[in-house]
Amino acid sequence: VVRVSLAGICGTDLELRDGYAGFAGVPGHEFVGVVETAPDAEEWSGRRVVGEINAACGACPECGRGARAHCERRTVLGIRGRHGAFAERLVLPVANLHEAPRSVPDEAAVFAEPLAAALRLQEQVPVAPGTRVVVVGAGRLGLLVARTLALTGCELRVAARGPDRRSRVEALGLPAWDAASLPGRWADVAVDCTGRPEGLAVAHHVLRPRGALVLKSTHAQPAPLNLSPLVVDEITVVGSRCGPFPPALALLAEGKVAVADLVEATYPLDEAGAAYAHAARPGALKVLLRAT
Amino acid sequence: VVRVSLAGICGTDLELRDGYAGFAGVPGHEFVGVVETAPDAEEWSGRRVVGEINAACGACPECGRGARAHCERRTVLGIRGRHGAFAERLVLPVANLHEAPRSVPDEAAVFAEPLAAALRLQEQVPVAPGTRVVVVGAGRLGLLVARTLALTGCELRVAARGPDRRSRVEALGLPAWDAASLPGRWADVAVDCTGRPEGLAVAHHVLRPRGALVLKSTHAQPAPLNLSPLVVDEITVVGSRCGPFPPALALLAEGKVAVADLVEATYPLDEAGAAYAHAARPGALKVLLRAT
Repeated sequence: VVRVSLAGICGTDLELRDGYAGFAGVPGHEFVGVVETAPDAEEWSGRRVVGEINAACGACPECGRGARAHCERRTVLGIRGRHGAFAERLVLPVANLHEAPRSVPDEAAVFAEPLAAALRLQEQVPVAPGTRVVVVGAGRLGLLVARTLALTGCELRVAARGPDRRSRVEALGLPAWDAASLPGRWADVAVDCTGRPEGLAVAHHVLRPRGALVLKSTHAQPAPLNLSPLVVDEITVVGSRCGPFPPALALLAEGKVAVADLVEATYPLDEAGAAYAHAARPGALKVLLRAT
Repeated sequence: VVRVSLAGICGTDLELRDGYAGFAGVPGHEFVGVVETAPDAEEWSGRRVVGEINAACGACPECGRGARAHCERRTVLGIRGRHGAFAERLVLPVANLHEAPRSVPDEAAVFAEPLAAALRLQEQVPVAPGTRVVVVGAGRLGLLVARTLALTGCELRVAARGPDRRSRVEALGLPAWDAASLPGRWADVAVDCTGRPEGLAVAHHVLRPRGALVLKSTHAQPAPLNLSPLVVDEITVVGSRCGPFPPALALLAEGKVAVADLVEATYPLDEAGAAYAHAARPGALKVLLRAT
């Protein structure tokens, strides 16, 4: 049992509200908190933790091959069969917990989950110095993904709509391009962080033949995707979800990925409705909920 | 200039007729013929050849990285900016030609192009003994793809609709599964050879998380693809088009991939309309056009 300190609202939470995945419990899967009770109380009680969101069975074929995030019988914190972090307390297996390093304040530790998800991309698609990468979408997810990619020395651009959005990207130290006038066939890797059909189209446009189009957002609605160009250009589309916590925590501890400037507002838990409305504003950055 | 002997009708030809790619010239891109004239006439005249369909500029970035099939300024035989093989003669750069081995009759050599395309898959996705592979679609393309995959020692199944189609698959020496009742999450690799949204859905269903979904068919119409499951299951979708001719010709010469039993009918060129109608029948195998 973890007493939640701080939780983050993610695009998936907004989609869950709109019916995605048919989830009807307490949402929330980005959190930092303090262990209240645990099977090994001496070991865990009072530790400040973040947590991996997939609770796996340990026995199915996917668990057998080490893909616990794909366990057939998994529950997922705040998404599938398990109440989430927008509450005073949540419950996760001890195996899912990681202690938050002392040097990482709650306001940064709450980013462990989305930062891990951003890092997942680099486990799936090679990104190296010289690789041309375009991140489509300059919201909370796109900027976080862009910051992890910037560490690789790749040729990075963030595609954003409108001068305000682009100024914000540049103010955060990232190179911005106008999403409406991207060059065609430029990128080796394009990452859709918009979760919208338009974003997908932009990502496809900027991609060179044989490039990789990474889907980093869930889409609440089926998108009409024109498949023939994927075949003709031999594009690889890569779905990307949860990632590794230890490197995410290390990056936060070392200050190599800044997150403080990605927080737009913090609401108390009993104002969750207003917090959701804020998070749903176009282009909103991270909105946090303070539970205790 | 190649005098066409025999040409094959492919699903793409039917889609071109229905408006795909906006092509208005002579279609046809699978052929075997005899060189009539060439810049180096002494070297080439009278040789029996097959041909790669992408005529590249040799100077653009894609050509520079060796991806001539993706040349920005390419013409494509019978598909884009270049009249094709459903004619008495066609024109291709000498660089595109491969001599047909003596031991390979016209009726087999005409399969060089689709066989090369089938082999392309194995350049993109690792397939080895033990890899579980499902080919969705038991038409001319699916069966050819399945035969190339059978060479790898993978655990192969061909998903076909209806008992007649499955009997045909089994009569060709391939293991058949009912497309309507495939197990979920079974395959490491699923190959859509149907070009239809239903086929894509079947391929996705049979695929395990983190599996590869290969698109081997062009789709004339945009398909509404539900993207969230691709993200949640971290599926990789791989577009796959043209492949290497030398191994295709070697397999035909060595008799390692049978093709004679994939020919359903041969029509003279002046009955091309009837040939198209035949090729468009559901589940039709290869229909050939004899030009000379």
